[in-house]
Amino acid sequence: MPIITLLTDFGLDDEYAGVMKGVIYSINPLATLVDITHQNDPQDRVQAAYTLLASYVYFPEGAIHVIVVDPGVGSERKILVAKIDGHFFIAPDNGILDLIILDKQPDLIISAENKCCFLNTVSHTFHGRDIFAPVAAHLSKGMDLGILGPEIPIDRINKLDHEKPLFSQGKQISGTIVSIDRFGNLITNIHKSMIERIFKKKTRIKVRVGTTAITGISGTFSDKEKSAPVAYEGSRGFLEIGVNCGNAKQVLNVDKKDAVVVCL
Amino acid sequence: MPIITLLTDFGLDDEYAGVMKGVIYSINPLATLVDITHQNDPQDRVQAAYTLLASYVYFPEGAIHVIVVDPGVGSERKILVAKIDGHFFIAPDNGILDLIILDKQPDLIISAENKCCFLNTVSHTFHGRDIFAPVAAHLSKGMDLGILGPEIPIDRINKLDHEKPLFSQGKQISGTIVSIDRFGNLITNIHKSMIERIFKKKTRIKVRVGTTAITGISGTFSDKEKSAPVAYEGSRGFLEIGVNCGNAKQVLNVDKKDAVVVCL
Amino acid sequence: MPIITLLTDFGLDDEYAGVMKGVIYSINPLATLVDITHQNDPQDRVQAAYTLLASYVYFPEGAIHVIVVDPGVGSERKILVAKIDGHFFIAPDNGILDLIILDKQPDLIISAENKCCFLNTVSHTFHGRDIFAPVAAHLSKGMDLGILGPEIPIDRINKLDHEKPLFSQGKQISGTIVSIDRFGNLITNIHKSMIERIFKKKTRIKVRVGTTAITGISGTFSDKEKSAPVAYEGSRGFLEIGVNCGNAKQVLNVDKKDAVVVCL
Repeated sequence: MPIITLLTDFGLDDEYAGVMKGVIYSINPLATLVDITHQNDPQDRVQAAYTLLASYVYFPEGAIHVIVVDPGVGSERKILVAKIDGHFFIAPDNGILDLIILDKQPDLIISAENKCCFLNTVSHTFHGRDIFAPVAAHLSKGMDLGILGPEIPIDRINKLDHEKPLFSQGKQISGTIVSIDRFGNLITNIHKSMIERIFKKKTRIKVRVGTTAITGISGTFSDKEKSAPVAYEGSRGFLEIGVNCGNAKQVLNVDKKDAVVVCL
Repeated sequence: MPIITLLTDFGLDDEYAGVMKGVIYSINPLATLVDITHQNDPQDRVQAAYTLLASYVYFPEGAIHVIVVDPGVGSERKILVAKIDGHFFIAPDNGILDLIILDKQPDLIISAENKCCFLNTVSHTFHGRDIFAPVAAHLSKGMDLGILGPEIPIDRINKLDHEKPLFSQGKQISGTIVSIDRFGNLITNIHKSMIERIFKKKTRIKVRVGTTAITGISGTFSDKEKSAPVAYEGSRGFLEIGVNCGNAKQVLNVDKKDAVVVCL
Repeated sequence: MPIITLLTDFGLDDEYAGVMKGVIYSINPLATLVDITHQNDPQDRVQAAYTLLASYVYFPEGAIHVIVVDPGVGSERKILVAKIDGHFFIAPDNGILDLIILDKQPDLIISAENKCCFLNTVSHTFHGRDIFAPVAAHLSKGMDLGILGPEIPIDRINKLDHEKPLFSQGKQISGTIVSIDRFGNLITNIHKSMIERIFKKKTRIKVRVGTTAITGISGTFSDKEKSAPVAYEGSRGFLEIGVNCGNAKQVLNVDKKDAVVVCL
């Protein structure tokens, strides 16, 4: 019962995610399907890349992760199938796998080109249904990666178009908000390992976002009084900013892509 | 592992969809469940009919499709169970199956009346849980359709209350927007086969919606410059209107049920 | 194929629910997972308690219900694992199980403390992933409850912080709106059995909410003319207030937690 996960920006109002599942079950009735999310912000590849990084390791080895955040659908962009860290990934060649590849050396990256693994008719606008889903289903039945198409050297795949956290003056990290969760918590691209590398004492650190400065990195929300902003190590392992019993996005008046600075 | 799909307007905030699944698994623990959507616009049967038409063929034969968009719940309206095109459909008798029946001759249509296939207590407001779900579960275990109730002749079921595309003067098709997806793309009820029947050259066609006129039907978004409106054959096989890298609903200031005209 | 249900306030925009499923399948690949909802209003324990009460009985005995509406995550609050009415429940010790316990005598309540059933690393902010999910998965494989931690006497668990319906003067019940569904129907905490106990004739009763008074409790919406407010016995067995072909929340200008009074 191989696991196939889906991460898309299709939303849940339309039939798109359901139809992908129909295609998969038509090819492999024994697949186990899991939605990571279908509500990635439309076409936001950076958000998708961080969500994927935070998710895949919690699935068993051999899981097949399908990511359809694909502004280039219908153009000549490649569709990549990669084996990395014991997992399989199917994604447009638009940088979504970048953060995983930075972390782990890929075993193999293939360009999915063999039409025998696609649906008979391939539309211009819904490759999730016509290519990604059938390729995932065939893989889940044990099909060899090599059948899908030619190998792509790692230096030939597209990079994620984003600003990485910047280290300046040895004592400052400048990052951004990559995602805001349902509770209004701000999820940054500053990993705890970056902070640990530069700062000795977490209690002395200042975290700045918008017009707010927070002193110290806390373990939990309740380390601060009610309604106070709090910087903490989030469940992804990245720095997050919340408001104890409140909505940080609203209270601090900030938004996705805003800057976050960690300094002394 | 028979597949049961769910298409409802229950939304995802409440327990309704989850409870239907509990009822199904209580009767058939081996069923495979797939959500088409639970976010059909409340009580919009036309939208549901087009979503169903676009979805069911991507599931394997024998799949059971449960549609609960049912403003008449609790009234005397029938609940239909139909076998069409190798698939099973359970839906209120309110026209939701109309588009499929227009396309394919039904093998059998039954009125679900045999209470032994319902939950013991049937509420007035949640037939999805008390009738649709248990009927689907029993069917998925191989129960004969005939046990459910009497056959209904096709001319005795209710029609979908909607305007079909209108062909006028031999050179014009007038349709409507039946759905708008998460990206703001406008999904019409004008099928590509209608356009092909009337117009020789796709490049000469004009598509009008709101105050906008678009020339030609494109293959993909990127056939037009950024922010330009584009008419294209959507993944459903119906004409869609989008804006390259934009939201057509907002940019063109139109809404569901607005008219779309294809002419020379 | 044991069933595990999930009821959380995580929403569907982020990876949280999907990651919990990854953890469960990593431990028990044969589990069957069902979402009750992930869109409980953030941190609203009363809403979650009523949703759970309305849901669990529709699942087969032996089902494991995981509830993560947990404002106290990261603090010292306990995580309870209870066996009640043939079902298993995993929930923070914050009163969410209260309504079920009021109804049925628990067989056993355990405080989940045995770290061998948790993920190796337990974060401060995502116990759903690190504790609730693995505990559920181990239970679904038949693990004995007693392994998880010490038994907690029923009088030592926390109560739900809410106002129960008030009976005054023998002829009046004062309750509140605990939930509003997608159609705008107002779901109250006044159970039909409370009404039956006090009032002889349903047709004479008055239901007051906001500035509106409704006469009689109807079977279905269509018992009233279009756009009229209607009080009826909802699918949960609790009193609901709707508007025939309309949205009661908007039309009656009321909201969650507003008072609802049933009187003569």
